[in-house]
Amino acid sequence: MNSQEIIAKKRDKKELTKKEIEYFVKEYVKGNIPDYQAAALVMAIYLNGMTKEETTNLTLEMANSGDILDLSSLGKTVVDKHSTGGVGDKITIILMPVIASLGIPVAKMSGRGLGFTGGTVDKLESIPGYNTSVEIDKFIENVKKTGISIIGQTSNLAPADKKLYALRDSIGCVDNMSLISSSIMSKKIAAGAEKIVLDVTVGSGAFMKTKEDAIYIAKMMKDIGKLANRETVCVLTNMNEPVGKAVGNTLEILETIECLKGNIPEDIKEIILAIGSYIIKLAGEGENLEENKERILENIKNGKAYNKFLELIQNQNGDISYIKNPEKFQKAKYIMPLYAEKTGHIEKLDARQVGVTSVHLGAGRIKKEDSIDHAVGIWLEKKIGDKVKQGDILAYVHVNNEDTGKTAIEELKQAYRIADNPVKMESYILDII
Amino acid sequence: MNSQEIIAKKRDKKELTKKEIEYFVKEYVKGNIPDYQAAALVMAIYLNGMTKEETTNLTLEMANSGDILDLSSLGKTVVDKHSTGGVGDKITIILMPVIASLGIPVAKMSGRGLGFTGGTVDKLESIPGYNTSVEIDKFIENVKKTGISIIGQTSNLAPADKKLYALRDSIGCVDNMSLISSSIMSKKIAAGAEKIVLDVTVGSGAFMKTKEDAIYIAKMMKDIGKLANRETVCVLTNMNEPVGKAVGNTLEILETIECLKGNIPEDIKEIILAIGSYIIKLAGEGENLEENKERILENIKNGKAYNKFLELIQNQNGDISYIKNPEKFQKAKYIMPLYAEKTGHIEKLDARQVGVTSVHLGAGRIKKEDSIDHAVGIWLEKKIGDKVKQGDILAYVHVNNEDTGKTAIEELKQAYRIADNPVKMESYILDII
Repeated sequence: MNSQEIIAKKRDKKELTKKEIEYFVKEYVKGNIPDYQAAALVMAIYLNGMTKEETTNLTLEMANSGDILDLSSLGKTVVDKHSTGGVGDKITIILMPVIASLGIPVAKMSGRGLGFTGGTVDKLESIPGYNTSVEIDKFIENVKKTGISIIGQTSNLAPADKKLYALRDSIGCVDNMSLISSSIMSKKIAAGAEKIVLDVTVGSGAFMKTKEDAIYIAKMMKDIGKLANRETVCVLTNMNEPVGKAVGNTLEILETIECLKGNIPEDIKEIILAIGSYIIKLAGEGENLEENKERILENIKNGKAYNKFLELIQNQNGDISYIKNPEKFQKAKYIMPLYAEKTGHIEKLDARQVGVTSVHLGAGRIKKEDSIDHAVGIWLEKKIGDKVKQGDILAYVHVNNEDTGKTAIEELKQAYRIADNPVKMESYILDII
Repeated sequence: MNSQEIIAKKRDKKELTKKEIEYFVKEYVKGNIPDYQAAALVMAIYLNGMTKEETTNLTLEMANSGDILDLSSLGKTVVDKHSTGGVGDKITIILMPVIASLGIPVAKMSGRGLGFTGGTVDKLESIPGYNTSVEIDKFIENVKKTGISIIGQTSNLAPADKKLYALRDSIGCVDNMSLISSSIMSKKIAAGAEKIVLDVTVGSGAFMKTKEDAIYIAKMMKDIGKLANRETVCVLTNMNEPVGKAVGNTLEILETIECLKGNIPEDIKEIILAIGSYIIKLAGEGENLEENKERILENIKNGKAYNKFLELIQNQNGDISYIKNPEKFQKAKYIMPLYAEKTGHIEKLDARQVGVTSVHLGAGRIKKEDSIDHAVGIWLEKKIGDKVKQGDILAYVHVNNEDTGKTAIEELKQAYRIADNPVKMESYILDII
């Protein structure tokens, strides 16, 4: 077996065997296969596709390329949650304290943002002191102590995926179904959870632009989960407009605090109920989804979820005085409004455009090495379906440079479309697979 | 403009602009674009193709990436000759001294063998002392002095092609029409000749397996030549069986000596007449192709071509006593015969299989860095169309290791097929474009 023959096989649209995939990934991670050969194989995969078996084999090999976390000492079923990425997606930070407050352990590793999609780790780092680089022992100890810990991925979690992802990113081969699903599932498998609930986002602000694509990838990931002995449920959520009102790191933490105090926008509420009820079910803590939803709402209402959030932050060295007094958070220098140019109903609020604008403000990264500005972002006052009058404020841009802000306002204007007639609302939950 | 966007464009089957191709090649040669991005682009080109315009732009950019030889001081039209590669292909070494003996300057840079196809430079280096690494000034001086010089490609001749070829070779992307033709033509353009005759080989021992493919690539190279102001003629030759009787470096030199003494196998004769008559025509030294052929045969018969061959070798520091006394050449330790297993007519003599066997003997390279054994090779006693009796010798394997020889005999047996009935001969010249 040699790397050139494997590349040539995929080039000729043939199916790679488990052994060939294992060999290529292992030798690539060791550095025996150079980046340029991996790049050629990845492009051939991108253009010629992979079968379900190839995708599963790639996933398992990447998962096994580093440490596989052992969470058995927690003594309970751990359910992982993952989103395929979106704009304004703070669901993990809101939902996981609720889950922990119900006595279900949360041991979660999250990612950073790249491109127009944000990342949970960046958002949590908006909280002064919050440490996302926690050693595994301490991570598990935290979960034992308070029932929850959310950290960044350790360096030896699926290193093959890390290396391949960076390569894919540099050669324009990120948005391929097989490569996306194997990347996600390899990390989830390595992260040790027995069961997985995936938030598969669909729409302009997501990788998957259509429901058909989302169903396709959801089934693929579910199949991989099955073969890897990880029960997986996929919740398809709408990402045509951003989730909630805040886009940007500190702003999303502020919105999270509001939500955990019970002031939850309708879309966030529907999403956390759908995903949360399945997490509870998979954890073996409640078969009835409707009852599970009630328990989620109850623990928000009675403050238990909010208190768990404070515990989480304190345990990770975060300064909870900021959570208790949100006005302490550093604000951007300029808060600039975008006004409605006409009266009508919001028909469109393009998530992708909002995400791209937030990156231009400095809230996200174009390259992995870029630093981000936690204070900047966008606060959406009006969303799809809302009635507006000419001159109403549609959104605020939080920015540290006036010129950047002016450009952002123009960009954001393009994200909105106002119709004369009332608009039929889209569903927030599109399907459950 | 950035490299990722260019890769993504070709990934999406879009046509690259001249500017994009220039940028990518320039930055790649400078080292600003890494091998892995180039590998991804090359695989995308391999799978999604290039238009004629893209191919021409790539060719010109690669030609311009290093020195462009100026042969104007020779004061005459220089016609270059190139073969797309084959097995036993010693046409250049036989024909070019004939051309020089007719007063037409020959300033030729040749390549080394790779895979199952041999290279002129390796063959010439079988002659003790023959120096293929000659400085450009000395090269041109040699041509002025004796009318002929054949050397290896200088390091700064189309360096972009050299870098890209090595990359293509390592990622299984060699055999693509656009990439092959741009590679060949970039070197020919950089090598300074005003006109070009290409020997486009067709068959099992060539890149182009079918006449259709050969016509396609021939037209492509002719078009590139036109756009680059280099008149180009393509002679399509049969490479289903090897050319002549010898395959292997020293053996091919021995056959060359025989040919230049007038003992020319029919296939070699037809090929040198077809290609040679066009070289003379393009050089402006004779419009009538049939007359040109006569002049070629005459200069072989009267010994002028043979004498020019001696001059060529002497000028490059080669020891002509070997040419005069061919028994001086070092022979392989074992010369093992392959016998015909049945009586009949040779129906097939697979050039590719013969080439692969010669590589196994040590006559060729699998990797660029491999060293070669000049003495080893195959001498074909019987070729397609020949009548044989059971027990006749079909071929000899020249080898330095007995076990390798035994395996080679078995391999070579597979190359031959003997039919009961007389065989219809294939043409040696398939087309002229």
